[in-house]
Parts: sequence; structure tokens; C-alpha cells
Amino acid sequence: MDRNERSRLGDFATAIQRRDIIRGAAMLGAGAALMRPMPMIAQAGGMAEVRKAALAGRDASLKRIRDWIALPSIAAENRNMPEGAAYMAELARDAGFANVEIVPTDGHPGVFGTIDVGAKRTLGIYFMYDVKQFDPAEWSSPPLEGRMVERPGFGTAIMGRGATNQKGPEATFLAALHAIRAAGRKLPVNIVLICEGEEEIGSPNFRQIATKPNILAALRKCEGIFIPAGWQDKNGNVSVNLGSKGIIELELVASGERWGRGPKGDVHSSLKAMIDSPAWRLVAALNSLVTPDGNTPLIDGWFENVRPLTAREKSLIVEAAKLGDEAQQKAVLGVTHWIDNLPYPDALVRLAQEPTVNIEGLVAGYTGPGGKTVLPGRAVAKLDLRLVPNQTRAEAEKKLRAHLDKRGFTDIEMNVSGGYDPTEASETSRLIQTELATYKKLGVQANLNARLAGSWPGATFTAPPVSIPAGHFGLGHGSGAHAPDEYYLIDSTNPKVAGLVDATMGYAEFLYTLAAIK
Amino acid sequence: MDRNERSRLGDFATAIQRRDIIRGAAMLGAGAALMRPMPMIAQAGGMAEVRKAALAGRDASLKRIRDWIALPSIAAENRNMPEGAAYMAELARDAGFANVEIVPTDGHPGVFGTIDVGAKRTLGIYFMYDVKQFDPAEWSSPPLEGRMVERPGFGTAIMGRGATNQKGPEATFLAALHAIRAAGRKLPVNIVLICEGEEEIGSPNFRQIATKPNILAALRKCEGIFIPAGWQDKNGNVSVNLGSKGIIELELVASGERWGRGPKGDVHSSLKAMIDSPAWRLVAALNSLVTPDGNTPLIDGWFENVRPLTAREKSLIVEAAKLGDEAQQKAVLGVTHWIDNLPYPDALVRLAQEPTVNIEGLVAGYTGPGGKTVLPGRAVAKLDLRLVPNQTRAEAEKKLRAHLDKRGFTDIEMNVSGGYDPTEASETSRLIQTELATYKKLGVQANLNARLAGSWPGATFTAPPVSIPAGHFGLGHGSGAHAPDEYYLIDSTNPKVAGLVDATMGYAEFLYTLAAIK
Repeated sequence: MDRNERSRLGDFATAIQRRDIIRGAAMLGAGAALMRPMPMIAQAGGMAEVRKAALAGRDASLKRIRDWIALPSIAAENRNMPEGAAYMAELARDAGFANVEIVPTDGHPGVFGTIDVGAKRTLGIYFMYDVKQFDPAEWSSPPLEGRMVERPGFGTAIMGRGATNQKGPEATFLAALHAIRAAGRKLPVNIVLICEGEEEIGSPNFRQIATKPNILAALRKCEGIFIPAGWQDKNGNVSVNLGSKGIIELELVASGERWGRGPKGDVHSSLKAMIDSPAWRLVAALNSLVTPDGNTPLIDGWFENVRPLTAREKSLIVEAAKLGDEAQQKAVLGVTHWIDNLPYPDALVRLAQEPTVNIEGLVAGYTGPGGKTVLPGRAVAKLDLRLVPNQTRAEAEKKLRAHLDKRGFTDIEMNVSGGYDPTEASETSRLIQTELATYKKLGVQANLNARLAGSWPGATFTAPPVSIPAGHFGLGHGSGAHAPDEYYLIDSTNPKVAGLVDATMGYAEFLYTLAAIK
Repeated sequence: MDRNERSRLGDFATAIQRRDIIRGAAMLGAGAALMRPMPMIAQAGGMAEVRKAALAGRDASLKRIRDWIALPSIAAENRNMPEGAAYMAELARDAGFANVEIVPTDGHPGVFGTIDVGAKRTLGIYFMYDVKQFDPAEWSSPPLEGRMVERPGFGTAIMGRGATNQKGPEATFLAALHAIRAAGRKLPVNIVLICEGEEEIGSPNFRQIATKPNILAALRKCEGIFIPAGWQDKNGNVSVNLGSKGIIELELVASGERWGRGPKGDVHSSLKAMIDSPAWRLVAALNSLVTPDGNTPLIDGWFENVRPLTAREKSLIVEAAKLGDEAQQKAVLGVTHWIDNLPYPDALVRLAQEPTVNIEGLVAGYTGPGGKTVLPGRAVAKLDLRLVPNQTRAEAEKKLRAHLDKRGFTDIEMNVSGGYDPTEASETSRLIQTELATYKKLGVQANLNARLAGSWPGATFTAPPVSIPAGHFGLGHGSGAHAPDEYYLIDSTNPKVAGLVDATMGYAEFLYTLAAIK
């Protein structure tokens, strides 16, 4: 299952500036291409000693990323999971976290630790120590080696699984803690670190970690929480996300077995004249879910709790649309018209506003080349349903089931494999204000993104009982999450994009900014 | 593509008597399980010398089957096609055919030959020299070896690809010609042999062979034509088919490429809120083709040329239903209810009467385990549409296209990969009367089957310009067409089922019966 929506969308946000983007990219309000050069981060603020320490620690930081890449923890393959958690715990201790604990779950363990410097404010940091599966045959360098490669337009990068998703950015955050300590400075805020090893399989047990009493108590003290990310595009621009859609992902299965009609297995297709077809039953059920154009959910009560976008949210989107390159985005996506031939700003508003029912995949009967005369006993539609505030995952599951049942499709199985609630982070929260202030101080163009159309585990933090703002922060650049040749920029040749040391300083600046902001 | 409907349905017809049937079986009016023993064929008629020759030729006949199995011609793999045609020609010459020619087509060649003994009547014989693909790993003995194996309840059989579909029965027919010649007797009828090597890929070029002027002229002189078949069930019973449904097999493809909406490739599913979905478009198009229960075509004008079953046809079906074991058939098929909960006889009438639109397969987007957050750029439904007299394949293709176009689905591709017209053979034709008389003479219970729900290339013969009755004839038994461990019975231990020599005599009896019948 491919759920790393967050990192993917990060890629998409940077990708729209690039010509070499893979199809499948998304973009949303991240279309700014302003040419204002990023000032040298070294010149910013009174951080000279920290920067000196970060420069001195550059090789150690790089080694930290490379060594971590060499130990891939893959939950889907049950590979190196205890080892990955132990390594994560060690990385945390090295960076100064105390009371580091490995947190058992019904699945793979999490890791938790705190740095309490007696500061007034506390920042939450979310890490994943797992990575996506990979096939070495598809890579141009061994995916666990962490070889240095040139990325034209960016500089020298480390290539390996997890380089940008998410070990590189995470290790860069740790590098900031190392640098501050090495510079002999005290951290300006307390830090709460929560890590999981199941992000790539949809964080099925993450809530168990976040609601463990001591962890919940620690999280609730946080001003907010972010995951480190290196999503600068080639112009150095970043997005600040004010929320994201939720999702439920599921299979609808029609089968003779459950239906009590049609065949239990596949039978010869000539029998269709006397035997019912589960495949046709699936088609009928699917057909009830959306308008004939496939674009608006018809599930009973689906819009009851949908909060329309605010005027501010709409205006953010319309502003962002002005900076986007519609023609290039259409070309990249292989699309010639948006839904209903909407103008670009309206299409982006629709993207943020509307809940969706999407068919990810259809599987029934014979799926090879040509045909085969079978009447399949089973047909499956893989769906993802994107949710907007104030829909919830629980509500969506219940309403979809009720909708099917009401139409007699009680036999159609609904196998929900995962999902997230939508998230929202107030623009006025200290988390978002600190992001904006930090980027501004560093001369980075930050575009406020009203709502990510993708989904991420942030709802674990934004929903009760944790109830804190959650988002993404970081300078730097990487690409190839979930793909071969994943990389993370180390030594930048692009004056607008941060390499490892500048990205380290970005996190350091964030901490001091959070401590100082009103 | 799996189009060997004829041989499959042959298997099905025998299979319903067996407990070890694979799911996927069909049956239709072949349900008789009368216990009347088949008399020894040796005692029938004045065929003693021929039988003596057939017995003497038994080893040579078996070798002929084994050697043929060792040379698999597979059109789908372009394997041994010229070699297979040459071998077929040689087999024909050996059996006494003159003017044997290899007939080029736009695809793989056919073979044609005649035996003209100056008789009053001429019989057409249809052979295929190709076989279905196979995977040796799935077989219990090497599929090209022709090893002798025990089949409990039947006797000793030869196992190999093509054993029953169709080399064994075809070689048995040739054995009859050899035996008659060896016995010093003259053939009682002239014989026209037409062979193709593309049956397993849907006979795409067979019409080119049948309408070659000299071949067409020869075919038109025939009383009728049959393909040799060994479809006795364990009680020795056979079916005499009076016709078969037609079929068109096709893919409906919705794609962003053709539609001009939605993405050309797969894009991230979060974009569904602003990008149209070819998968939903396919669902909408499919939904227009049938009633909500999936059981009755709604394609405009679909029933205009449908000829209702005659009273005689219905009564044949209802009679056959009395002999069928409904409970066993349901168990074998994994079915608990027929369409509309019809009683068994009505379900069998519906099976013969109704044209169908069947979904063979659905393929779109991500089809592996779990889910993947994509919006697919392409979605495919594999359909087969069964046709009844007097529908035609050409009519069906045209009406389906018009139906889609009228509803705005002009972009949905309709890739027809093949098809056959329906066939009919009059019960009063000499072909059918000879089949019935021969079976009767040999004490074999023959059930008149009003209409096969499956389809076969027989329409090439029954339709203009050939316009002769076409069917299937033969004693003997085999199973496993298209499956591993395909076999054909050689030495029967079942007094009701013919082994190689008795089946040889069955063909000899047919020839003399055809010569003598009114």
C-alpha cells in the first residue's frame, strides 16, 4: 500500500518546477516561481557559532544519514524492525534526548524521547524510521550504499532508500541539535520526539504510541509538531500547509460466495444466461456512489459535515493559482481539461474543497492479454475516498456501508485497509507563525497552502486527545520518495536551495524563532 | 485468448457426470445418466473385417497420436506452424487423401484434401492441427511425451497436450480410413478434409481457407461437416448439438488519451477532485449495457433479430432437464440459485434462449494486493457477448458501437478480438440424422441438445457461402482440454465408453450410415 502521501505530495510540490517530473505529480498552490534569491543563511541572525559547529559537523551528519540508509526498516516486509527502533533510539540519545524509550505496539515499536531544558515552550517532532520497499535492479546505484551523485541544478546529493523520505531531513534536524550543543548553546525550547516504524504501511498503530499516557501528556504540552522535510523546489520555494484532506482506502468486493447468487469461483462465460454475475453487481454498486460524470459523491449524507472553504482559504488558493504554471502542470499530468472545464483557480479551489470517491483499481476475472471466456466469481474495486473537514474517517465508513445496505448491496464486502481524518492547523497557531517567520528570516518564499489534497498521519496530533497543530517544516531538497534513485541534497550548487549545512541551520533558526515569537 | 469453446463444452458435457470436475464446467441438456449398457461395438453391423483391421492397426494408431502430440503447433506462440501444417498434410496423405494442399492465409496455413471415391454422398471433416499453450511445470507427466496413464473408471489413456483437443479424436477418424482401406473395402462416401492451425486463437483466417474457390466448391458438395470428438461421459452418453450461440469478444477501453479528459497516464489519486476519471467513465458506460441485475442486455435494438426458441427446441431442453442432476450441477458450479431463482428447466431454456453481455474481466489502475493512491489513466472491461439466431456478429458489433455513441461514449474504444456467428443444424439434416442413427446402432445414448450455449467456428460452414450443416461426432473419451494432464482414452475398462479401437469403429459406422440413410 502506498500511503506516503505526505512525502509524495512534498515531491509534487517541488516537482512542478522541474521538467523531469514523473507523471503522477500533484501540485497545489505551490506554483510560485519568484526569482528573489535566498540570502546566505550564514548571514542570518546571531547564529554564527551554531553555523560554525554545523559546518564542523557536516561530515558526521552525512555519515549519520549514510549509516541510517544502510539499515532499512521495512514494515511491509517485517525487515529490521526491532533493529530500526533500537537504531532510532540510539540516534535520539546521541542528539541529546533523555528518557528514550522503545514503545511496543500491536505492530512494530515506536520510539519516544524528550529534551527538557526548562524552556517556556515545547516543540513536538515526528519521525518515521521506516522506509518504502525497493528493488535494487531499478536503481542506478545500490540503494543501501548512500553513494554521492550529481543532480544538475541542485548539486551533490546522497542517493539511497530513505534519503529524502525521511531519513535525510530527520537526520538534518538531529544535526541542528548536535550543532547547538557543540556550539555550547542551550536549546531555546524543550523538544518531544515521537517516532514510528509503520508510516509506510499507513501508521496502523501510531495512535497507540501517541496516546500512551506519558507520551500523550508530553505531546499535549507542545506548541505544535512537525515532520522534518526537504521540499524546496529549484527556486528555493516551499509550501506551508494549513491542513490536509483525510482519506479512507478500501476494497469493495462482490462475490458469489457472499452474495449467495452467481458462482463461488470462475465458471465458463457461456453460463451467463443462467447464472448471475458478481462483476455486474459490483458495477451496479459502484454506479450508485457517484454522479454519472464520476465527479461528485452520491453517498447518502456525504456532505452533511463538509465545512465549505473560508473566504481566506479560497483567497489563498486563488493567490497561489496566480503563481502556478497551469500549462506546465497540465502537460506534466497528461491532462487537457480540469473537471467541468474549470478555470485553473476554480479547479484548485475544487481540489481543496471537494470530497472524492476515486477508483484506484478494478480487478475481476481474467486480467491478462486478450480475453478468456469466464464468468468471474469475484470482482473487486479498490477505492480511495478523500475527506474534507469536518468529515471523519469513522463517519465516512459508516455512511458508505449504510448507503450500500440501503440499496440492497448488503453482500458487498467493504474492506477498509486504512485511513486518516482530515487535518487543520490554524494560520494563527505558533507552529505556522514560526514556520512563516523562519522562512521569511531566511529569505525563503513560503506559500501558504490552504489544504493539501493528500493525506498524512497528522490527524493523530490534530484530533483529540492530542489536539495540537501539526505540519511540515524544513529547508533542503530531495526527490524520489517511493521511487528508484531517491536522493537528498548535501552540497548545494543552487544559491536558492539549502544543502545539508544550510538546512541544519534552518531547523536551528526554527527553534530560536519558536522561542521568541509572540 | 481462450476460445476453444467447442472442446471446452465437450468436456463440460461429459464432466457433469464426474466428481472430479474442475469448476468452470458447463452443461446443457447433457445430463442423462441412463444405465443402459453400450453393446459391444464388435457385434454391430457387417463391419467384422474393418474391426479386425482396426484392431491390427491399434498400435500404429496410438503411435500416430503420440507422434503428433510430440509436435505442438501453437499459433499464439508462432511455434511449429509451418511444420504443423506439413505434418497435417502428411497425415492426410497417409490416410488416403489426394490433392492435399497447404493453404496459405494472412496468418498460419490451413490444409485441404479430398478422397473422391465416386460415391453419391460427400462428408466434410474439420480438423485443427494446433493446440493450446501449456506449462510443463503444471503437468504430472511431460506434456509432449504421450505417456500412458490410468484414469480410474475409464481405463488407460494417453496424456499429452492435444490428446483430446483435438489430435486424439482426429487421429482416430484417420484410423477409421486406414482400417477401411486395410480391410480392402472401398469408402462408402467421398470425404473433404479442411484443417486450420489457428483454432486456439479464434480462427481469425479460417474463412479465407473455406472460401478458397476449390475448397468452397468441395465443401458445398458435402452433406454436412463435423469435427471428430471424444466426449462420451462415464455412462457412455453423448450429446448431438443442433446449434450453438455466437459470440463477440472485445475490450471496452476508457482512457484519458482517447477521451481528452482525465489523465493520459496514472496520476496521484488526490487529484480526483480536479481531474476526471476514465475508470468512472467505464463504469458509466458498462452500466448502460444491461439491466441493473446484470442479466438482460439493454443495447439498443439488441433483440430485433432474436428468434425465439421453437416449441420443439424448448421441449428438447425440458426433456434433457429431466435427466440432469440439478443439485450436482449447482454443486459443481458453486452456484446456489439460477438467475431469477428459475426452476431448472426454465433456467436451461433461458441458457439456450437469451443473448448475454458478460464481464470476463476488469482491469484498471492498481491491481495488486492492498491499495495504491492512483487515479488510473485507463480502464478496461473484457466482455463476451453471446448471440443467438438470428443475430450476427457483424450486427452485434455495429449495434454495440451505436449504443455507446448515442450515449456520448464515442471515446470508449471497442476492440473486438474475435467472434463467431451463431450456428444451427437442422434436426432433419442428413448430418444430424446420421449421427443419431449411428449412435443408436451402437447403443449409445445420444441426447439432442437444442443449442450449445458455447460458440465454435462452425458458423464458417453453416453461414453463406458454404451453408452446410456442421456439428460434432465421435465415440471415445478424453478430458483436460486447455488444462494440464490432458488425456484421451486408448484402452477402455468401462463397457459403456469406447477406447481407441471402438471409437475408430464409430467413425467407420458413421460413414456407412451416411451412405445408406435416406
